[in-house]
Amino acid sequence: MGEHIVTSFGEELEGVDRLIREMGDLAGTMVADATRALLSSDNPLAQRVVSDDTIMDAKQRELDERAITLIARRQPMAQDLRAVIGAIRMAGDLERIGDLAKNIAKRVGAVGQTTTPKSLSQSIESMAEMVHAQTSGIVDRYVARDAAALKDLRAGDEKIDIKYTAIFRELLTYMMEDPRNITACTHLLFCAKNLERIGDHATNIAENAYYVMTGEQLPINRPKLDETAVSGAASES
Amino acid sequence: MGEHIVTSFGEELEGVDRLIREMGDLAGTMVADATRALLSSDNPLAQRVVSDDTIMDAKQRELDERAITLIARRQPMAQDLRAVIGAIRMAGDLERIGDLAKNIAKRVGAVGQTTTPKSLSQSIESMAEMVHAQTSGIVDRYVARDAAALKDLRAGDEKIDIKYTAIFRELLTYMMEDPRNITACTHLLFCAKNLERIGDHATNIAENAYYVMTGEQLPINRPKLDETAVSGAASES
Repeated sequence: MGEHIVTSFGEELEGVDRLIREMGDLAGTMVADATRALLSSDNPLAQRVVSDDTIMDAKQRELDERAITLIARRQPMAQDLRAVIGAIRMAGDLERIGDLAKNIAKRVGAVGQTTTPKSLSQSIESMAEMVHAQTSGIVDRYVARDAAALKDLRAGDEKIDIKYTAIFRELLTYMMEDPRNITACTHLLFCAKNLERIGDHATNIAENAYYVMTGEQLPINRPKLDETAVSGAASES
Repeated sequence: MGEHIVTSFGEELEGVDRLIREMGDLAGTMVADATRALLSSDNPLAQRVVSDDTIMDAKQRELDERAITLIARRQPMAQDLRAVIGAIRMAGDLERIGDLAKNIAKRVGAVGQTTTPKSLSQSIESMAEMVHAQTSGIVDRYVARDAAALKDLRAGDEKIDIKYTAIFRELLTYMMEDPRNITACTHLLFCAKNLERIGDHATNIAENAYYVMTGEQLPINRPKLDETAVSGAASES
């Protein structure tokens, strides 16, 4: 590749952004596939998610290498440096999303034979769609450098958290109804929790992207983390 | 501070390392306190963990600022650059450990009145100690630049995973025994899972630290993630 010397910093950063977009697309596919595999007990599809995670890890490694080489060679100043380091961070969150999708896929065998009640599988499916839309939307808005849209998108995470709390409660009732549901429901609980955490990682990406574009932090007090920790308390003691 | 001009890159990097160590100490305290608060239903202690997390976030932000300023001003070459970016990553993992400890602390109210069976609380306590020792050990070995010890320490995560699987199974039996245990046990399950994830973040730190020191990646195939996803499958269908 003889083009090294003539490319600009901006062009090289675009190459890094392209990897972010690829990772974002892959993350979306993995989340959708893992959930589908879970709800239809599709083991081969679950296997594909597991092997997709290897591709995800390789992409992150490639991005890291490119980003570090870019910094070392171009010695960028504050603003550009923030963009490159921001990209490294976003790739880290996308890689974590891949891990979480893989973890869902690995539970397909454990949930396996148990038939998930219709209303529950619809809830999990709709939560997965929300999470998928949230992740893709944020990555798209970052690539398009649309800071205002990112600020709005962040609010989507609250809806995901509310959905998660509803699923959490629904799962508890199934467990209480019949102890034979407990093992499978516990795995579904972790799957729902993973989806909720994927939403948190998408929020991290939005915050990072916003910072890269504007140099400003989004206000810290966002609706965050697991509501069941608090709402559980209310319904308990 | 007029010393800026005379300090060396190495001295400035030491300042960043000092912050890593402070964050590591705080992470250890938060894990120990959160677990103690959980097992003794100590709400004020849980509150302290929540406010410690604000300090943790501030320290991470300070480290990030310092690291980025250091790169921008010193324009370090490959090896030094890797060290600074490695520090940014390690701080990210330590901040996540703080979040997870905070999440345990926030569940204290939800588990609250239920008395945790002695054998279970001993298991959780011993898991927390393992996780604490693992995290401190790794941060210490990084600060001492002891790559060989880091490689060995990584194996400790496997013991944590085994402990987690045992606690997972124990919790399932309590839930099956009496449906009134389900809500509290579900929260304890997430707490144990959080400890397991803290172990994973400690492993990330070890891998990052190793890479910073040697320029080499530790082999990828480490014992990792949640064994229950697989062992659950075996005991199920």
